[in-house]
Amino acid sequence: MVTWVYDFAEGSKEQNDLLGGKGANLAEMTNIGLPVPPGFTISTDACRAYLEEGSAPPGLADEISEHLRSLEDAMGRRLGDPDDPLLVSVRSGAKNSMPGMMDTVLNVGLNDASVEALARQSGDERLATDSYRRLLQMYGSTVLGLEARMFDEAMDELKRSRDVKDDLGLTSDDLRHLVTSYQEVIRSETGKPFPQDPREQLDRAVQAVFDSWNTPRAVLYRRQERIAEDLGTAVNIQAMVFGNLGATSGSGVCFTRDPATGSQGVYGDYLANAQGEDVVAGIRNTVALTDLERLDPTSHAELLAVMERLELHYLDMCDIEFTIERGRLWMLQTRVGKRTPAAAFRIAMDFVDEGLIDMDEALRRVTGHQLAQLMFPGFDPSAERTVVARGMSASPGAAVGKAVFDSDTAVAWAERGEDVILVRKETTPDDLRGMVVARGILTSRGGKTSHAAVVARGMGRSCVCGTESLDVDIAAKQFTIRGGPTVHEGDVISIDGGTGEVFLGKIPVVDSSVVRFFEGDPGDDVLVNAVSRVVEHADDTRRLAVRANADTPDDAARARRYGAAGIGLCRTEHMFLGERRALVEELVVASDVDEQAAALQQLLPLQREDFLGIFEAMDGLPVTIRLIDPPLHEFLPDFTELSVTVALEDERGATSSRHHRLLAALTRLHEQNPMLGLRGVRLGIVIPGLFTMQARAILEAAAEWVAGGGSAFPEIMVPLVASTEEFAIVRAELEKVGREVQEERGVQIPHLVGTMIELPRAAITAGQIAESADFFSFGTNDLTQMTWGFSRDDVEAAFFPTYLDHGIFPVSPFESLDIEGVGSLVRTAAAAGREVNPGLHLGVCGEHGGDPASIHFFDAVGLDYVSCSPFRVPVARLEAARAALMQ
Amino acid sequence: MVTWVYDFAEGSKEQNDLLGGKGANLAEMTNIGLPVPPGFTISTDACRAYLEEGSAPPGLADEISEHLRSLEDAMGRRLGDPDDPLLVSVRSGAKNSMPGMMDTVLNVGLNDASVEALARQSGDERLATDSYRRLLQMYGSTVLGLEARMFDEAMDELKRSRDVKDDLGLTSDDLRHLVTSYQEVIRSETGKPFPQDPREQLDRAVQAVFDSWNTPRAVLYRRQERIAEDLGTAVNIQAMVFGNLGATSGSGVCFTRDPATGSQGVYGDYLANAQGEDVVAGIRNTVALTDLERLDPTSHAELLAVMERLELHYLDMCDIEFTIERGRLWMLQTRVGKRTPAAAFRIAMDFVDEGLIDMDEALRRVTGHQLAQLMFPGFDPSAERTVVARGMSASPGAAVGKAVFDSDTAVAWAERGEDVILVRKETTPDDLRGMVVARGILTSRGGKTSHAAVVARGMGRSCVCGTESLDVDIAAKQFTIRGGPTVHEGDVISIDGGTGEVFLGKIPVVDSSVVRFFEGDPGDDVLVNAVSRVVEHADDTRRLAVRANADTPDDAARARRYGAAGIGLCRTEHMFLGERRALVEELVVASDVDEQAAALQQLLPLQREDFLGIFEAMDGLPVTIRLIDPPLHEFLPDFTELSVTVALEDERGATSSRHHRLLAALTRLHEQNPMLGLRGVRLGIVIPGLFTMQARAILEAAAEWVAGGGSAFPEIMVPLVASTEEFAIVRAELEKVGREVQEERGVQIPHLVGTMIELPRAAITAGQIAESADFFSFGTNDLTQMTWGFSRDDVEAAFFPTYLDHGIFPVSPFESLDIEGVGSLVRTAAAAGREVNPGLHLGVCGEHGGDPASIHFFDAVGLDYVSCSPFRVPVARLEAARAALMQ
Repeated sequence: MVTWVYDFAEGSKEQNDLLGGKGANLAEMTNIGLPVPPGFTISTDACRAYLEEGSAPPGLADEISEHLRSLEDAMGRRLGDPDDPLLVSVRSGAKNSMPGMMDTVLNVGLNDASVEALARQSGDERLATDSYRRLLQMYGSTVLGLEARMFDEAMDELKRSRDVKDDLGLTSDDLRHLVTSYQEVIRSETGKPFPQDPREQLDRAVQAVFDSWNTPRAVLYRRQERIAEDLGTAVNIQAMVFGNLGATSGSGVCFTRDPATGSQGVYGDYLANAQGEDVVAGIRNTVALTDLERLDPTSHAELLAVMERLELHYLDMCDIEFTIERGRLWMLQTRVGKRTPAAAFRIAMDFVDEGLIDMDEALRRVTGHQLAQLMFPGFDPSAERTVVARGMSASPGAAVGKAVFDSDTAVAWAERGEDVILVRKETTPDDLRGMVVARGILTSRGGKTSHAAVVARGMGRSCVCGTESLDVDIAAKQFTIRGGPTVHEGDVISIDGGTGEVFLGKIPVVDSSVVRFFEGDPGDDVLVNAVSRVVEHADDTRRLAVRANADTPDDAARARRYGAAGIGLCRTEHMFLGERRALVEELVVASDVDEQAAALQQLLPLQREDFLGIFEAMDGLPVTIRLIDPPLHEFLPDFTELSVTVALEDERGATSSRHHRLLAALTRLHEQNPMLGLRGVRLGIVIPGLFTMQARAILEAAAEWVAGGGSAFPEIMVPLVASTEEFAIVRAELEKVGREVQEERGVQIPHLVGTMIELPRAAITAGQIAESADFFSFGTNDLTQMTWGFSRDDVEAAFFPTYLDHGIFPVSPFESLDIEGVGSLVRTAAAAGREVNPGLHLGVCGEHGGDPASIHFFDAVGLDYVSCSPFRVPVARLEAARAALMQ
Repeated sequence: MVTWVYDFAEGSKEQNDLLGGKGANLAEMTNIGLPVPPGFTISTDACRAYLEEGSAPPGLADEISEHLRSLEDAMGRRLGDPDDPLLVSVRSGAKNSMPGMMDTVLNVGLNDASVEALARQSGDERLATDSYRRLLQMYGSTVLGLEARMFDEAMDELKRSRDVKDDLGLTSDDLRHLVTSYQEVIRSETGKPFPQDPREQLDRAVQAVFDSWNTPRAVLYRRQERIAEDLGTAVNIQAMVFGNLGATSGSGVCFTRDPATGSQGVYGDYLANAQGEDVVAGIRNTVALTDLERLDPTSHAELLAVMERLELHYLDMCDIEFTIERGRLWMLQTRVGKRTPAAAFRIAMDFVDEGLIDMDEALRRVTGHQLAQLMFPGFDPSAERTVVARGMSASPGAAVGKAVFDSDTAVAWAERGEDVILVRKETTPDDLRGMVVARGILTSRGGKTSHAAVVARGMGRSCVCGTESLDVDIAAKQFTIRGGPTVHEGDVISIDGGTGEVFLGKIPVVDSSVVRFFEGDPGDDVLVNAVSRVVEHADDTRRLAVRANADTPDDAARARRYGAAGIGLCRTEHMFLGERRALVEELVVASDVDEQAAALQQLLPLQREDFLGIFEAMDGLPVTIRLIDPPLHEFLPDFTELSVTVALEDERGATSSRHHRLLAALTRLHEQNPMLGLRGVRLGIVIPGLFTMQARAILEAAAEWVAGGGSAFPEIMVPLVASTEEFAIVRAELEKVGREVQEERGVQIPHLVGTMIELPRAAITAGQIAESADFFSFGTNDLTQMTWGFSRDDVEAAFFPTYLDHGIFPVSPFESLDIEGVGSLVRTAAAAGREVNPGLHLGVCGEHGGDPASIHFFDAVGLDYVSCSPFRVPVARLEAARAALMQ
């Protein structure tokens, strides 16, 4: 026999799968003796059964009856009793908080008769009539699906006729009139009167909560928050308490610590003579919690005691909803409180200092994502500002610029050096050019998986999307904030992609104090102190080493400051740009091997200098250097642009022989799919001397650094290997260079030769490759591209938004590793490699090396290190430790 | 104790791993009592040991001594005995025949003393001196590594001074003079005299044979023929017999049947008074074997008996080398004879008819490769022609055209409708344009893995490469055949890529009789009869079904004639070309969903007609139709070309708004890597209605065909699926269309919905996809591209030749499936798919479906069918059966 319904006394906070978050915590508070209005919870099992079958499961009605009877017995009242009615609230409560997404019906049990009894019992006729009016309104819209507008119109008409602005201005008679109007709306719209049977009210309210799980709004929210579709919601039936019974009553919301900063001391809002709904709706101004001490010192003291009790019990900061009914405190909800990233670090360390949790637990309570948020530049906290609109925090970072409404303007203004924010209703691939040059993107439509959001995250641009209060008028080049000002093209706005806030005018942007700390400025910030202690403990806890991807001495030095234990990926192709393009041109247009060799010979000393600087910055730490990877034509002008230039030059009689020569080379080298062309190890095998020139430069630089007393540990990495044969050929050449340089320089240079695993075939045949490789570094960017068969450049804008909307993947596989597909190759290759070569050193150097979920996977499959951008190194240090703890 | 040396009497024909092909067959002939000059074989084990250590393995010298003593005892002579010398030949003999690749030393045992004894014993002083002269020459070049030129010069000088043209014109005294000259060459070049110790001669000759395994020529040959590097060669030491002891002596080479046509009756050449080397060298004209009957009826009869004995013993056509020494027949070599494809089929069926083998064995003896060769058009066998040069058969097919020497000319001439053959020393990517338009390619350098060969095979062009007797002069636009005529630009030549032959002038090309047979013209050709019987038996034997890739009713009909059991791949993108491009343009430039839908609505009836024709051609057989796969911009003009056109039009003031509109669309759709972009199922998900329009067209056509009394079995295939989520979304849409059409038309249309497995991720997650797929079809072209991370278009010319040369792969993975890498994914996916869905139908529709080695793999992993081009269907039928037999 399945049990569908549980009394609050039967549950506990661990049971949020079954009872939902709200129900589990009501049970927990009941069981530790806090004053909770009695009630019971209908389980998520019941909801799932209902949604599957389309009707309430057998037995549910009986169980509700039984629990209702107990509740009635406990309260000494009967539901809807015409003499002394029990009223109940019916509230949704899923496992994950889905604020405002699902439905609630209050005051269930009122009807034409019991409303009179309530008036008598409470001695407050207005309260009784208003409660009935609220029930009719909530029942009408929630249970019967009528448009809220119908009830609002009746209310507005009444206010107009009574010439009052506020519903507090309506008298008891007025409200009685409204009850009649609302009942008439229900009758005329549904063809049936409002049910007078309290049990019918209750049952239909429960079903309405079940049904609310599948509203489009809720479905969208879950998709965006990556909440499973099949969880269902629980329903909490609870005796009503009233905060609106006069001056000795009231409702409030509070946190046991400040959720914005994490600072100690309670924090909350209280509204006298009001229900909880009124506090949230912001109808009247709330007062601070401290004012309650003056209004009702007893309840205040009791509340403080409850809060202390809750913190000690939950061992975390809690948020609380409470109601005081005629001087008596009732707890309506609690949960571990949401908090800002800064508060998360501060609270965690304060709890440690208060002896409540240990450092490991502190580590579990902060996330790499939170740390990353703290490292973005933000708006100067001391600057004055007003949030004029709020959208979704789609891609973090603070951005300031002139509003522009189309890509052409964005590009034109950006080219003349202006910062612009691209504002659109929503973006499409046509807007890409504008997004590339903009500081930030602001849209009125679309969620975290919209085109704007996906592309902005991919490009690292700030983005606020789905800002519904904006009316964007592209034709008029302006947007209006609903009920507020209009912003025209060229007006400066500021957006915070980390919070979703939109501001008018320019707000000064400041570096994060956490970044200043890593850059060597300790400061005396309490946040910095907390972060540094957490990260230090993370370093003691983690198994994974963290390296950085850095191509220049500057980047390498920064990586070291951020705590990198070496370089996991130094790309050498960046060293072929700028003034050196001319040499690459020579290499590419070379007509024979001798000309190629001459070009390479000129590149050698330049490359050597590059590497020397990096070894200096990374003295004593390993440096993994990837031999050149991209196709050579990437260093030449764009094929189409040059084709047009040459055609026009010829047309104008201004033929350029250099252009013709380059175009001939580009025509020869032109590839349909450069990602799948002559690059990586293939280039090294086809162009004799290219890889050996680089290896020589690396080893000569290392020799020079070592000769000067330094220590250098180069790890030479061969890119795009698909087969052990390719690697063997290159390895043999590199070993020869290694012997030569060490002999010429008379110095030992300990160095490794390994390979990227970034092609599916390399992963599949890793066991063979490992026989001769010293290390593997998983190139998860390319591995993702090849495994899925799509290139990031081509697909992120073209169809990722559609894919995310369809739930084909919950997050871009370029942001977070696709563990099922790509991860399977990584796991297989790591195991196969280690089996034949137990000393094989394993790392990852794709962008996933800095992604929290991916880091946990890399820890689980036993890699030795992750490598990520210098800026992500602290995040990776933190998450590597959390991975170790949660393993 | 390892044994290194085996007497001929100790071995058998099964031991060619150990004794090499020659040694094993000498042993076999010895043991069945045929007259073989006695001798022994040094095993391949000894060779490998020698090559590994760089010196003869311990014990080898002693074993040689022992076997030599037995041989001397049997012959009653001692090696190099000054009175009555035994002479021996030292010949290489690897497992696989490597004609002309390795070394031989004859007449070992002659020295200044024994040569006199030989003269006495043989009564032929000239023979003795000539034999000594030959030993010095072979020893000098083979063992001592001297240039052959040095000996040739001494010979030429002597002939000049004696004024004779032929060495038969040299007297015994002349030859004695030459012996002195040769000894002087050896002394002056090596600083040491020719060794007079016969045993030293023998040991060094053996080592020389061992060393010849690793000459660059031999290494290259093995790489091209895909012979393993580590086999090593055996060495055969055998008592010399002399075919040059006057008119009652002679040597010959013969086959037990005609190796060109397979017709019954012996076939061979005989040269009186000559050694075997002379027959092969073609110094004098041989006579037909029938002439031997006249010259030496006893030996002739004995030889015929031996040949019959050999055929019955080997149960196959054999080729034989023999020598008659003064009327006594000696067998020097036999092996299963090489034969043309036509002979292979005819001999196999004749052996069946003669009751020697069964049909299964006949199947084992012919290959799909041979059948494919028989299906290419060839030169009219009745036409007169002379082979003027012979190169490597790099890519089959007969081609006729005007010789051109550069791509510009090739393109210009081809554009005016002329057939051209591109002639180059070797080709590079710069020659691609010319290769595309040429009927065939002829080069003087490079082997079967050269750029020309690889690219020509990829493009299906005839190619003869490495034709060393051509002197190609690109600047002068001509080539000269060494010792023959000069061919100028514009002269017509004919090349046969299947044989490597080059002819002057135009030779008429005729269809293959085998193709005429499949096309419905049975003919009375003995070859056609043999092929049809073999293929018929193959159909009874094979487990794999064979389908065809066909996009049009014509192709479908042809596929059916060639024996296809259905269509495994009908590409629908071909249906968007031609006049329909305008509709695709509308679809692409559509500004909203309605415009898109209107364009799709216009395509629907056109597509329906397409499918109706195919169902008609394939009445009663399954037709797998792939929904549109390529990116839409492939149907629009080339981006670069249009950019140039628009720039020039604007420059000239002739702006075209249509061009501008198209360019805007192309700019939007432009992809860096179209192969990795918006295509396949992604397109179907992003453009609503595209796939459902196609599915509707398919099912409406099927309904129409069924309503008319036909039967249609459409299998709708979704391309480029990477995840089960993608497939599920499309499947749901297709199922809806299926229900609608069947309801609208009031007819049941049995149909399947399945997916290509062509991305690594699809293979990895095949177990999930199989839950909702009716079938998988492995798209091994794309799967190869993604697994290796290269695209065929971009790499075949750019680096495959280098890769093949380096042995990174033995054959292009686009020609023959990479079993280790790509095959591993196929195997895993097939197993995972079947595990969750035992009824899952599995096929392959990449080009590998027609490749013999790949077919064997597909049979082994349990696929249900392969699908290939109609032309390859008979090949696949044959190889599927051979796979079943050889499993």
